[in-house]
Amino acid sequence: MTSARLMGPDLPAIPWEERPEGCDDVVWRFSCNPVIPQDLIPSSNSIFNSAVVACGDEYSGVFRCDDKRRMMELHAGRSANGIDWEIDDERIRFEAADGAEPSEWQYGYDPRVCFIEDRYYVTWCNGFAGWPTIGVGYTRDFETFYQMENAFLPFNRNGVLFPRKVGGRFAMLSRPSDRGHTPFGEIYYSESPDLTHWGRHRLVMRPTLGGWQATKVGAGPNPIETTEGWLLFYHGVLTSCNGFVYSMGAALLDLDEPWIVIARTAPYLLHPRELYERIGDVPNVVFPCAALTDAATGRIAVYYGAADTVTCLAFCRVDEVVEFVRENAL
Amino acid sequence: MTSARLMGPDLPAIPWEERPEGCDDVVWRFSCNPVIPQDLIPSSNSIFNSAVVACGDEYSGVFRCDDKRRMMELHAGRSANGIDWEIDDERIRFEAADGAEPSEWQYGYDPRVCFIEDRYYVTWCNGFAGWPTIGVGYTRDFETFYQMENAFLPFNRNGVLFPRKVGGRFAMLSRPSDRGHTPFGEIYYSESPDLTHWGRHRLVMRPTLGGWQATKVGAGPNPIETTEGWLLFYHGVLTSCNGFVYSMGAALLDLDEPWIVIARTAPYLLHPRELYERIGDVPNVVFPCAALTDAATGRIAVYYGAADTVTCLAFCRVDEVVEFVRENAL
Amino acid sequence: MTSARLMGPDLPAIPWEERPEGCDDVVWRFSCNPVIPQDLIPSSNSIFNSAVVACGDEYSGVFRCDDKRRMMELHAGRSANGIDWEIDDERIRFEAADGAEPSEWQYGYDPRVCFIEDRYYVTWCNGFAGWPTIGVGYTRDFETFYQMENAFLPFNRNGVLFPRKVGGRFAMLSRPSDRGHTPFGEIYYSESPDLTHWGRHRLVMRPTLGGWQATKVGAGPNPIETTEGWLLFYHGVLTSCNGFVYSMGAALLDLDEPWIVIARTAPYLLHPRELYERIGDVPNVVFPCAALTDAATGRIAVYYGAADTVTCLAFCRVDEVVEFVRENAL
Amino acid sequence: MTSARLMGPDLPAIPWEERPEGCDDVVWRFSCNPVIPQDLIPSSNSIFNSAVVACGDEYSGVFRCDDKRRMMELHAGRSANGIDWEIDDERIRFEAADGAEPSEWQYGYDPRVCFIEDRYYVTWCNGFAGWPTIGVGYTRDFETFYQMENAFLPFNRNGVLFPRKVGGRFAMLSRPSDRGHTPFGEIYYSESPDLTHWGRHRLVMRPTLGGWQATKVGAGPNPIETTEGWLLFYHGVLTSCNGFVYSMGAALLDLDEPWIVIARTAPYLLHPRELYERIGDVPNVVFPCAALTDAATGRIAVYYGAADTVTCLAFCRVDEVVEFVRENAL
Amino acid sequence: MTSARLMGPDLPAIPWEERPEGCDDVVWRFSCNPVIPQDLIPSSNSIFNSAVVACGDEYSGVFRCDDKRRMMELHAGRSANGIDWEIDDERIRFEAADGAEPSEWQYGYDPRVCFIEDRYYVTWCNGFAGWPTIGVGYTRDFETFYQMENAFLPFNRNGVLFPRKVGGRFAMLSRPSDRGHTPFGEIYYSESPDLTHWGRHRLVMRPTLGGWQATKVGAGPNPIETTEGWLLFYHGVLTSCNGFVYSMGAALLDLDEPWIVIARTAPYLLHPRELYERIGDVPNVVFPCAALTDAATGRIAVYYGAADTVTCLAFCRVDEVVEFVRENAL
Amino acid sequence: MTSARLMGPDLPAIPWEERPEGCDDVVWRFSCNPVIPQDLIPSSNSIFNSAVVACGDEYSGVFRCDDKRRMMELHAGRSANGIDWEIDDERIRFEAADGAEPSEWQYGYDPRVCFIEDRYYVTWCNGFAGWPTIGVGYTRDFETFYQMENAFLPFNRNGVLFPRKVGGRFAMLSRPSDRGHTPFGEIYYSESPDLTHWGRHRLVMRPTLGGWQATKVGAGPNPIETTEGWLLFYHGVLTSCNGFVYSMGAALLDLDEPWIVIARTAPYLLHPRELYERIGDVPNVVFPCAALTDAATGRIAVYYGAADTVTCLAFCRVDEVVEFVRENAL
Repeated sequence: MTSARLMGPDLPAIPWEERPEGCDDVVWRFSCNPVIPQDLIPSSNSIFNSAVVACGDEYSGVFRCDDKRRMMELHAGRSANGIDWEIDDERIRFEAADGAEPSEWQYGYDPRVCFIEDRYYVTWCNGFAGWPTIGVGYTRDFETFYQMENAFLPFNRNGVLFPRKVGGRFAMLSRPSDRGHTPFGEIYYSESPDLTHWGRHRLVMRPTLGGWQATKVGAGPNPIETTEGWLLFYHGVLTSCNGFVYSMGAALLDLDEPWIVIARTAPYLLHPRELYERIGDVPNVVFPCAALTDAATGRIAVYYGAADTVTCLAFCRVDEVVEFVRENAL
Repeated sequence: MTSARLMGPDLPAIPWEERPEGCDDVVWRFSCNPVIPQDLIPSSNSIFNSAVVACGDEYSGVFRCDDKRRMMELHAGRSANGIDWEIDDERIRFEAADGAEPSEWQYGYDPRVCFIEDRYYVTWCNGFAGWPTIGVGYTRDFETFYQMENAFLPFNRNGVLFPRKVGGRFAMLSRPSDRGHTPFGEIYYSESPDLTHWGRHRLVMRPTLGGWQATKVGAGPNPIETTEGWLLFYHGVLTSCNGFVYSMGAALLDLDEPWIVIARTAPYLLHPRELYERIGDVPNVVFPCAALTDAATGRIAVYYGAADTVTCLAFCRVDEVVEFVRENAL
Repeated sequence: MTSARLMGPDLPAIPWEERPEGCDDVVWRFSCNPVIPQDLIPSSNSIFNSAVVACGDEYSGVFRCDDKRRMMELHAGRSANGIDWEIDDERIRFEAADGAEPSEWQYGYDPRVCFIEDRYYVTWCNGFAGWPTIGVGYTRDFETFYQMENAFLPFNRNGVLFPRKVGGRFAMLSRPSDRGHTPFGEIYYSESPDLTHWGRHRLVMRPTLGGWQATKVGAGPNPIETTEGWLLFYHGVLTSCNGFVYSMGAALLDLDEPWIVIARTAPYLLHPRELYERIGDVPNVVFPCAALTDAATGRIAVYYGAADTVTCLAFCRVDEVVEFVRENAL
Repeated sequence: MTSARLMGPDLPAIPWEERPEGCDDVVWRFSCNPVIPQDLIPSSNSIFNSAVVACGDEYSGVFRCDDKRRMMELHAGRSANGIDWEIDDERIRFEAADGAEPSEWQYGYDPRVCFIEDRYYVTWCNGFAGWPTIGVGYTRDFETFYQMENAFLPFNRNGVLFPRKVGGRFAMLSRPSDRGHTPFGEIYYSESPDLTHWGRHRLVMRPTLGGWQATKVGAGPNPIETTEGWLLFYHGVLTSCNGFVYSMGAALLDLDEPWIVIARTAPYLLHPRELYERIGDVPNVVFPCAALTDAATGRIAVYYGAADTVTCLAFCRVDEVVEFVRENAL
Repeated sequence: MTSARLMGPDLPAIPWEERPEGCDDVVWRFSCNPVIPQDLIPSSNSIFNSAVVACGDEYSGVFRCDDKRRMMELHAGRSANGIDWEIDDERIRFEAADGAEPSEWQYGYDPRVCFIEDRYYVTWCNGFAGWPTIGVGYTRDFETFYQMENAFLPFNRNGVLFPRKVGGRFAMLSRPSDRGHTPFGEIYYSESPDLTHWGRHRLVMRPTLGGWQATKVGAGPNPIETTEGWLLFYHGVLTSCNGFVYSMGAALLDLDEPWIVIARTAPYLLHPRELYERIGDVPNVVFPCAALTDAATGRIAVYYGAADTVTCLAFCRVDEVVEFVRENAL
Repeated sequence: MTSARLMGPDLPAIPWEERPEGCDDVVWRFSCNPVIPQDLIPSSNSIFNSAVVACGDEYSGVFRCDDKRRMMELHAGRSANGIDWEIDDERIRFEAADGAEPSEWQYGYDPRVCFIEDRYYVTWCNGFAGWPTIGVGYTRDFETFYQMENAFLPFNRNGVLFPRKVGGRFAMLSRPSDRGHTPFGEIYYSESPDLTHWGRHRLVMRPTLGGWQATKVGAGPNPIETTEGWLLFYHGVLTSCNGFVYSMGAALLDLDEPWIVIARTAPYLLHPRELYERIGDVPNVVFPCAALTDAATGRIAVYYGAADTVTCLAFCRVDEVVEFVRENAL
């Protein structure tokens, strides 16, 4: 087994901080967390579970901003360095994409952003007939956003696109859900010729019997292509007698048949531990939604929501993570 | 408003019995119910919620036969008159359709059969990753059956095809569900260019606030084309303090945009009342799954499961039903 | 202890049938049950849990008629003999009583009727803001009905008036509830100077630890004045693994302080046993709502709903019932 | 494989009726069911889930008699032929066995009776601190009964003794439970040197994934020793949308290590089907509690409760049952 | 629209602190929060959700003190400046008011105090028959307290009086509840001629679809009369996957028909954010129960419980709050 | 009543810190809490709810170490002073004790250690057939551990041995449970001649109606013998709208019949209050599992888990605690 390498473009200016002295962890936290405070914009109650991408020389993103009504909205933002962010005061107002007839806007949360071919696709948990399902849209400039058809019937959450077609079709992971806080959850894989009609569904990962990922699992950032397979960071949930605890793990999926799991971490990689992860609107939550990568150096920066209140950063290297996944596999 | 007429072929030999003397009901029961007893084949515990179609001079069908393990299986059967049935002792064993990779057989129940263009399509509640979703297959002769891709992600039930393309695409109604006995349920409409990839989902019908259809609603037989719209018989469920009660109503859907409900019965058309509907493995269930129609005379024969134990027949006329739906609309 | 005697007027033509040979029960069923079939009027799905009163030489009543939408409505009716009934096809449409501002009609069920001073008061479970509470109205002729203010905030059911003022105030029993099928329930007593403002609430009876009345208890017919106290027939509910079972018992309440229970039956008086009580829209229900009494002879005729589907009659004698209550007290 | 034979004593006068013409079932019903009506004694609401044994030339038994308070009590009874029974009006009042300090009587239900060495042991679901556990007692004459210590901590039900020591120790099957209607249940095996202290617990049988025994399983009559292993009739429960359905199956346990299941029926042997099994205080219940056997002929008579209301009889032959278990094993 | 002004008396010595530099919030926190620590008296586990009033030159109050048994009691207290409090070690022991027959003391919590005409009325959540309802009492001196009749049947909480009669009758807001932690809740308005008999109930406010007030809403301090309507601070609850989150909003009610909502805040005014609101016996709770007002200057001081552990203060100005309510209305 | 004295051996080097100035509490915290951090060994996510004993001149212990898979394991450890601990990196691997046939290791948590006669017995919550029950084992040197038979059938937790035989038999307290987070729980007493077979079960303590111990109670450290009775520290649980809160109280049990409670604290002795008790994987948990005692001086050191994350120490004196229990009894 050789060391894993990243397949995407280089990103020399990736936000980065080296592993602290005395730390043995494969994933380490940014020392200035949280990078986005809960009240960066006047209307926001909290900003978390958000998606950022490199965009030329800069960074752009789609952010979950719960406002002071505690309604869940998506806002666009941009940053010169990936750490200091400017987020629009107004929520994104999607225009209808050609041929699509999206339902009236109800709510949106937990976005992901994925560049495929010629544009940035956005997926999120979208209110449809009052129920959660996977909303799909795109933008070319983070100014104008187009909303396409919802990918699935209710009830679904955590829809995450692959950054390129697989076997000639668009590919998405998602987690079928119920209408409430959903005490179960598995990751499935689906394909589409046109990003509108979806099928050929495959089961990817189940929760485990016991442990930090025993209640449910869901995809985090878009899968990261490596020489060893798709690297998927995902969240797992344990139910304590005081509610859910969200941690982060990682899996390696087959490049051509991504519903095949090559390896998956038995231990977590990141677990609520700092005050900003332990205390907030929902205590004990670490929830990754985006990752930046620099192919040249193998560096990865993971953005994650903490305690459903703020947005944080953690770092790792692709070779170390993949090796850890393989050596600590379930 | 003129009287509604059926759009399909004639079926002079349709199973039929005139409305009894003194009965004012729009839908009336066959006097020899149940037509299929619970133990027609040696292994069966119950035979119900089944689908029959006219097939040349004869009738064929796909039957839900719960065996004495209480496992749910699908069996093929045939009949000269639609009343006296011969059902195969062995369950249907689907072959993989071209290009499809269906999951291992787990269970199947509540089938529907629909002739479209050149073959008989079968849809049913299919066990997939252990969860219910909509299985799709076809046969040309009720001997050999082919299984295609599942239409949707879990969790779904009561997938019912339209008998022709609508707006150039295949069309299906379904009822998103949960993993258990599902205390909610709405009917949605979805489209597909190829019966494999599905999208453009539309909400069709919700449960009502109170009444026989307050808990959930689901499509029954395949929609019946009439001059006034698609006639959809459907089941509605009320939750009493002793559990679910299943009744049958009808709706009229727009011919071109079938997610638009023209009218829908406020009262039920058929409700558990006879001993064979009130007593059985699940008391108080009337569950329609198939209908035969004779365009020349407007006669309709509805097959329905009773008390999750036996299969029964009821009759009506298209003009009377459509008039009733319009005049007793919600 | 002397034998109990009834305090009200005589009713020589009370519906009556002597106790059958060989029967030792204190309460016995009418041999021609059900007296009101489920489809006495064209729109009805079921007629049950209804209230009748003697009214000059005749009988009048307010009936729960669930229609074929399974919506719960109140209808007026009349009878020459208390057994053969004529029920209005149209539901009662209440006019606003002087000074009252009743909410829009939503639904009404489980009525009681009680003559006090100069008119017939009707109480029922009334939909208010979508939730159940106690509706109050009156009629003088069973033609025109007036609706007063709701007696209580949501959530309440089984509001039952006393036939005369107690301590100078109107008096009502009721059973605070929740919004669903309510897995608990106790009987409370409340007073009012004007039938609009209610207060001075007292607890009367709780469910027991185990037995037929372990889940909840609720008042049945209006309390019957006897020389020994108010005789209250009431329903009790047991929760089996297949749902609720409703039976009937009786209690003796203090004449001046009716929240004091003198005695209350440990065994039931009537329990689902006949097919029409065991089978119907809700299996295993006996639910008393009204009683006629003949003071001269001590005869009592109890009207009860069976299986939430039909209305039935049972008979007893006041001296025997009161003696049974005392000798079989909890 | 040779035919199975019974190991116990002969019982030439066993209640018996040959299999009806045209019936292929391995277990068939007595044509005069129910053998014990619900009101055999004046105080009883229902008599079911009861235990009978051969006792010299006669039969004796311990019966679950729910009284008209719906409280659960145990009564003794006797019969000359096993079919016509005389049951004591008064409930059994246990005396304390030597050295035991049983708690105050609260309730008792679902008894089993088992002759071991020199006396008849009775086990039942006993109220202890208000919760269900396994009560243990004995009698030599069905007149005087002695109560020993409870076998287990709460919560437990369906404690069933083996008719002889296994490996030098007394042996019992039981089904750990919760405090309510228990939506789960597995059969465990435990040992005791003295019938007071229990340990060395082993898991015997779990529910299955789907089918008539998917919710829970519990031992029925005391295991029957055969040349092929212990024959255990047991109940299995399926949860429909209208509640629990109880059926009967059988298993073959290893003679020396009875926690080893040699074979176990995939299909049920007896399922609610007759009106007296489908209708009653709890619809759709078949619940076996006792069996008589005649070693000379291999005949077995099974007593079972029906619909939690009456007691019934069914028949089979040991060789046929054991063959069926082996050939239709899970 | 002119600026809102307060209608009550002046209170020049109102506890007060100006809005901090750089703060734009309409409501701001006291810099020395909490004003009452959890252990101010030796027996207390926590002191929160309490009511204070101006009383001549001083301040008095009724305090929820949960003791170290975690039982909920009401204590009286007094303060010279509204910030430094002395609370009685012994709980309030109510005497029966004239004509009232209050039930035995069980528990009391979440009090409000309201001066009307000639005395201080106290309302609270009172244990009645073991269930929560609205207790009513009064005092003239905070030494002797009199308990009147409970206002309503169980189950109710958050009963809050208006500081003067409305339309000639006493008026109260309340929130009908269930017996536990109540996953729903709306505010209703009721009237009384005598503070004992209540009726003419009107719905005031429902929870919203989504947001910080989606699960339930309940009145906070007694409504404050302004030139623009009654100003009502209220709590709203959101259910996260880790339990309830309590925030504070405000509404403006019609002066003459207070069940008419003129405007109501879509965003919250105060939300758990400081450590003392985020951490405690119940994390993430802000629960207002009292307000002091100075008509001359428009200043308002709101007392609120934090994390069910301590008592805190926040400040605002009537004109700014009313303007905010109008401009940020739902 | 004289002052209580400890009956066990002296332990002059007991970990100890005097009560801080100005503190009146009977139990006070160690100023250097937590004594065991959550990551003392590389694999641990948290170390809590653990058991320590004096062992010659040193201390040994069995520790609950949840690893980074969040699986629950038991590890051995040792310390020179009871404060600075060294814990084995590898989990304990039990060997089968003579004659025992323990099931395969699934998980273990919440251990207690108790020296009886000649060895250290360990009890813990042991996974058996996937369900929690009481595992029993022993060690002589904290190097080699032997596992005996499970004490009970599932479902049970918090099995705690007495440090000597009572009435000639081994004695254990336990808390029967369900399969999940168990919203109820009482302490029972059971006896055994051989630590394998258990019986003669007695109820010891129930939860209270309201308060910190209203949901459930469970034994903490092994009972401590005093001149006044067995001193039992125990945990009690209250259910807030945000989940369980665990506190610590104490009871005094009869020396000869320990199921008799002489007195039991109405108030708690220790309640979550410090940050390390309020914040962690399960907020608001204080859970005692072990105690060291020095008979000569009456000093007691209690080890408790905090927030299901770390291990802490608290101190008290036997005379003060026993006096407090008596004077603040329920």
